[in-house]
Amino acid sequence: MKVVGLVTEYNPFHNGHIHHIQEAKRVTQADVVVAVMSGNFVQRGEPALFDKWTRAKAALENGVDLVIELPTFYAVQPSHLFAEGAVKLLSALGIEDMVFGCEHADVDFLALAKEAPAIDQGQKFQNKNQTFAKSYAQQLENETGFVLEDPNDILAFGYAKAVLKLDVNMALHPIQRVVAGYHDQTLMDSQSIASASSIRLALHKGKLEKIQNVVPNNTLAAINSEINTVGFEEKFWPLLKYRLTTDTIGQLGQVYQMAEGLEHRMAAVALAEPGPQSYQSFIKSVKSKRYTFARIQRMLFYTLLNVKVDQMQAAMQDPYLRVLGFTDAGQHYLNEIKKTVTLPIISKVDQQLAKANLRLDFKAGKLWQMLASEQDQQQDVTRKPIYVTKK
Amino acid sequence: MKVVGLVTEYNPFHNGHIHHIQEAKRVTQADVVVAVMSGNFVQRGEPALFDKWTRAKAALENGVDLVIELPTFYAVQPSHLFAEGAVKLLSALGIEDMVFGCEHADVDFLALAKEAPAIDQGQKFQNKNQTFAKSYAQQLENETGFVLEDPNDILAFGYAKAVLKLDVNMALHPIQRVVAGYHDQTLMDSQSIASASSIRLALHKGKLEKIQNVVPNNTLAAINSEINTVGFEEKFWPLLKYRLTTDTIGQLGQVYQMAEGLEHRMAAVALAEPGPQSYQSFIKSVKSKRYTFARIQRMLFYTLLNVKVDQMQAAMQDPYLRVLGFTDAGQHYLNEIKKTVTLPIISKVDQQLAKANLRLDFKAGKLWQMLASEQDQQQDVTRKPIYVTKK
Repeated sequence: MKVVGLVTEYNPFHNGHIHHIQEAKRVTQADVVVAVMSGNFVQRGEPALFDKWTRAKAALENGVDLVIELPTFYAVQPSHLFAEGAVKLLSALGIEDMVFGCEHADVDFLALAKEAPAIDQGQKFQNKNQTFAKSYAQQLENETGFVLEDPNDILAFGYAKAVLKLDVNMALHPIQRVVAGYHDQTLMDSQSIASASSIRLALHKGKLEKIQNVVPNNTLAAINSEINTVGFEEKFWPLLKYRLTTDTIGQLGQVYQMAEGLEHRMAAVALAEPGPQSYQSFIKSVKSKRYTFARIQRMLFYTLLNVKVDQMQAAMQDPYLRVLGFTDAGQHYLNEIKKTVTLPIISKVDQQLAKANLRLDFKAGKLWQMLASEQDQQQDVTRKPIYVTKK
Repeated sequence: MKVVGLVTEYNPFHNGHIHHIQEAKRVTQADVVVAVMSGNFVQRGEPALFDKWTRAKAALENGVDLVIELPTFYAVQPSHLFAEGAVKLLSALGIEDMVFGCEHADVDFLALAKEAPAIDQGQKFQNKNQTFAKSYAQQLENETGFVLEDPNDILAFGYAKAVLKLDVNMALHPIQRVVAGYHDQTLMDSQSIASASSIRLALHKGKLEKIQNVVPNNTLAAINSEINTVGFEEKFWPLLKYRLTTDTIGQLGQVYQMAEGLEHRMAAVALAEPGPQSYQSFIKSVKSKRYTFARIQRMLFYTLLNVKVDQMQAAMQDPYLRVLGFTDAGQHYLNEIKKTVTLPIISKVDQQLAKANLRLDFKAGKLWQMLASEQDQQQDVTRKPIYVTKK
């Protein structure tokens, strides 16, 4: 069996993802497609539009054979840690080929990564008035001439850095992204591919007619019937305000990624009279030039989830392969690698696991439900992987 | 100037309180009436119906001359600590006479308190299948023959115990309660006095016509126009569930008054699928014979406010006299005692105080606003005492 690995969020699953799957198979001649997918929260620190089960099912019904959850401690991270976590899981599954879309598919990202400065040494040349990513890109440009600014190029670069750092056998196959860039928020009715962010925006505005042609039927069905987080900000802000009002500055200061005394600023803004009346206005009040919007959102996610630095570091030391679903081919592949896989495979979560290793995912699932106003449904404990028979 | 002290909650201020004030003046021949009043949360662990300013104003317009806030760390406590805090503040103000209503005004509570077992040694004879209060009352009955079971008798007993413990010069003047017991939830239309709990119940049921004859005009006006917490449970439960879901068992175990591993039970009930759908059903799920409803509510209040044992103990060591309002006579009295008062008088709260000594009251005020759906109003910082000129 020839297998190819994808790193995904499927937020939501759309026609561009189908193209990605088809291209991955074509480029690598793979029979089996394995997707590592963010769980209930995505890299930007937001709740995924649909829960991980709904998104995994959509993927399995559209060409993916095995969906593995990218745990919260890898998924809700800056791109280089997100990429490193994903490469680690794919490699543990015995996968040696990754296919990903990016804005500059002609670039040899491995070669670029070798030339580039180390990411964790990047702090030393950070300009105080800009984000870390910008400072790093500036340094990279100075040293190599390459302008790293497009979001999928940044991820591609992250995969390459991870392959070098983890010293794994992983061929990287960049493919040119079709039509829309990640941030492109225009939807073209005549076309069948649009970016996930443009789809989310259309959903937010209630313009369902703009989505019909760019997502497969199962995503369309989910939009019409499943619980979702389109309006999550209305729930997020009162909970966040409550947390910032009642926790001590000492407690807030221990939150993962809370940096440079930002806990003081956040608490002060939350306690102001009159204070910000929405999540967006709160973020505007605490944001500075040094942080991207996504960085702030991740910080707020960890604040809301009450995740401290030490808990996060411990969790990251102990990764696992959580199976969200498979097709026959996916199940077959899982059986094949059973004895060689280098991380624990978790197919069913009991109370014990929910309290220990999977605690962050479990809590994130509960938080997702609160933000989606979903009555308590099994997100983790007792939930079995989804099984989809291929047509 | 002759002064008399009252211990109050005014939740809400009603005709029975006017009777109490008049009787207090008659019994002690006082010119000045000082009320120590619970702040934004009352002894039962619930948000007061109206905020402390609205209730202080009602009192000042109906015969009280000076309202001092009973700080959160004294107010939201079992009756003996509530009583002890109140006696400490009244005594610090140079007050030597207290008048209170109770069910057995003929009892000499000081004599009873002298005979009675020490309260903080009460644990040793607690029956495991009943509340501490019941076990203590049983022991008291065995030793003295007196049946301590009515809520205002229990408070009266608490005042007496506090006078002995603090060794202060304070004459206790019990007066017979008129008409309704504290827990009496019937309202009699023909009468002008009803219990606060019966008034709250009528408000909860929207039966405003039952309240008209038993509260003064300013309370009636507040009912018709001010923000209130009649529906607080709908806000309380999602926040509590969020807190119990995201905090660690270790964090919950440090909450003030959290006892005997109840944090495990609370977290488990909150995380159950499907879990309790309301605050009331949650309490029913965690309550046992060992705890009163009020005790559980106080525990949940401290859980929601994220108050740990050590913070609470430190706060209780550092009491103060927070002035909520005064009449001319009250102001005159404050001037008179300025040099002899034994605790700091606080008339205005700045950011500094709000972050230090008054932190619990400040946080409680913010929480009150969340439960009342009040947009951020000054509850503490920059707020000046209310001044009422007597007609």
